[in-house]
Amino acid sequence: MSLVEGGEVKKITDYEKLIKYFGVSKIEPILDRFKEPHRLLKRNIVFAHRDFDKILDEVDKGNIFAVLSGRGPSDRMHLGHLTLYEFNLYLQKKMGANVYIPFSDDEKYVFKKVESLEKAKYLALDNALDIIALGYDPRKTECFISTELPWVYKTAIKLSRHLTYSTVKAVFGFKGENNPGEIFYSCIQMAHILYPILVYNLPTVVPVAIDQDPYIRISRDVAEKIRVFKPAGIYLKYLRGLTGEPMSSSQPETCIFATDSPEEARKKIWNAFTGGQPTVKEQREKGGNPDICVVYEMLNIYFIEDDKEMEKLRSDCINGNILCGECKLKLTDYVIKFLEKHKREREKYKYKLKEFFIHEIDEDLLAKLP
Amino acid sequence: MSLVEGGEVKKITDYEKLIKYFGVSKIEPILDRFKEPHRLLKRNIVFAHRDFDKILDEVDKGNIFAVLSGRGPSDRMHLGHLTLYEFNLYLQKKMGANVYIPFSDDEKYVFKKVESLEKAKYLALDNALDIIALGYDPRKTECFISTELPWVYKTAIKLSRHLTYSTVKAVFGFKGENNPGEIFYSCIQMAHILYPILVYNLPTVVPVAIDQDPYIRISRDVAEKIRVFKPAGIYLKYLRGLTGEPMSSSQPETCIFATDSPEEARKKIWNAFTGGQPTVKEQREKGGNPDICVVYEMLNIYFIEDDKEMEKLRSDCINGNILCGECKLKLTDYVIKFLEKHKREREKYKYKLKEFFIHEIDEDLLAKLP
Repeated sequence: MSLVEGGEVKKITDYEKLIKYFGVSKIEPILDRFKEPHRLLKRNIVFAHRDFDKILDEVDKGNIFAVLSGRGPSDRMHLGHLTLYEFNLYLQKKMGANVYIPFSDDEKYVFKKVESLEKAKYLALDNALDIIALGYDPRKTECFISTELPWVYKTAIKLSRHLTYSTVKAVFGFKGENNPGEIFYSCIQMAHILYPILVYNLPTVVPVAIDQDPYIRISRDVAEKIRVFKPAGIYLKYLRGLTGEPMSSSQPETCIFATDSPEEARKKIWNAFTGGQPTVKEQREKGGNPDICVVYEMLNIYFIEDDKEMEKLRSDCINGNILCGECKLKLTDYVIKFLEKHKREREKYKYKLKEFFIHEIDEDLLAKLP
Repeated sequence: MSLVEGGEVKKITDYEKLIKYFGVSKIEPILDRFKEPHRLLKRNIVFAHRDFDKILDEVDKGNIFAVLSGRGPSDRMHLGHLTLYEFNLYLQKKMGANVYIPFSDDEKYVFKKVESLEKAKYLALDNALDIIALGYDPRKTECFISTELPWVYKTAIKLSRHLTYSTVKAVFGFKGENNPGEIFYSCIQMAHILYPILVYNLPTVVPVAIDQDPYIRISRDVAEKIRVFKPAGIYLKYLRGLTGEPMSSSQPETCIFATDSPEEARKKIWNAFTGGQPTVKEQREKGGNPDICVVYEMLNIYFIEDDKEMEKLRSDCINGNILCGECKLKLTDYVIKFLEKHKREREKYKYKLKEFFIHEIDEDLLAKLP
């Protein structure tokens, strides 16, 4: 099973297979070591880890740890992206983590996901605002844009001496048509991942979608060589988009952007893929299928905290007591409330943004943010 | 004929073959377009060029041009290195060039020619002092250390999108055991080469030993793609060391370092390889062979300006009128005079060094320079 090609990883959703393939551990056995386990933990969206028990040992001793959670700024952020940062925020608030957020403008540029570095820098600020507006604490959070911090390139070349082209080729599946910057990005990413370890000597965990694990593994190999803490991993499942396909910023109908208007959100949800029957009559008679329904999944993952409420919704769906339209309206209510609150929070955080960055940020770009 | 392997180029000294292989032009046909042609031009040490006639067209119009002449700081500089910068200084003083000098601490570090980036940075300042002490004008000279100027990495990734691994592999002969930083250095070097073109829009020439031509050619290809001036090249011959082998900083007996003591220099010259006969008697009878003599070559390349004086030395040698010991003493005199003057000039320039750098430099390192 080859999961990587040309530096990008294919999406596979058989999680048992993935756990085996990547050699990671299931989250359940350590679930009760989390303080007030987050919804994403209880519902098994955060489904696996690598060495997070070692981080929990530090927490038990009352020590702080670092969450390293980078973002590639090639587009606006959607709810799927924010979920990861909601989880990181939980780790900051409940588990005592410092959160470090590198924005890889260089990655998105060399992999041609964005047309210019300048655009990537603008998106980095926009994305940073979406993230910190979730409620991050500036005293426990550090953001930086990869090309703006000379430490990054310097550290990447230091780490490079511990790697070979053969290794990164095997891990990322590079081909002759990849450019040198794409190949070297393996070292840049590694510098990001090791930032809290090398700069602050903090045990570090990297929460990611499982497809990003190759970066963690190769960083662990190098960490071992240079005799520093080997970064731990926490793995999230892929989240489906509104159409049932993966969420993709380039297909706006698949996702709710953090800066969507209520009207845009309402329309997208109305067209979402559900587990319902073709007619009301059939729905009442046969019931729906929550296990394939994106609307049900979104309520479960993003919004409904109460487990009993979820159970009732599930049985109401299966028994035909509820129609898809009703669920869509319920989801729309949640989403619009979130979007309205998020808009207010963005406004509030906009001129605090620089407190979160460890380098100067461009005030002109800042002024242009929505 | 493969000249490159693992990112490093083999040394070949059949210049007719090299001119053909690299597709460059001989210098003679344009020699009279240089103002007061420098000794290195007249003696055919600067033996070839690529498009330098285009630069001369600009000079004829009264326009300025740029000389881009990088230095990899992995050791102290020797006379062979300084010769290149003596020629660049001539271009600044007589031909109206601005001179730009990137110090590639990253190159020397990723290619494992120096044990740490910090050491490379120290050597960059030491080497810079050797160079500017030759008499550079701070108003027409810019120095920078590669990892200290964020522009470099940003520009390298921009240029990277115009390259592929296949291309750089073909040009530099990379193998699986090369590290990602070595591969990416092709883009960093290109950013250095294109610096005066991209930042100041100046037609630029890169004077180098012929083995560096692959970097110029690949930069020209990319310059063409991004529609900017294609850097011209000026090529110097390899200079032999005192032992007859190539000069190498790692074999101190092959070269005179700019910071050698008179005693060190005297000893090295006394052991130099000459074209003399085994005994005084034979030398008087058969004469010596200046064409293989390193002492003769050094007088010719580095020190004796007067062509007639050189001719006389040559015939005196061939006719057995002069002994190797006499030539060695003559060379020693020149070298010691140079070293003493150079030492004074270094002192003078030491605290002017920062006027030449376009970024902050480390005052503590500066204080440690010999």
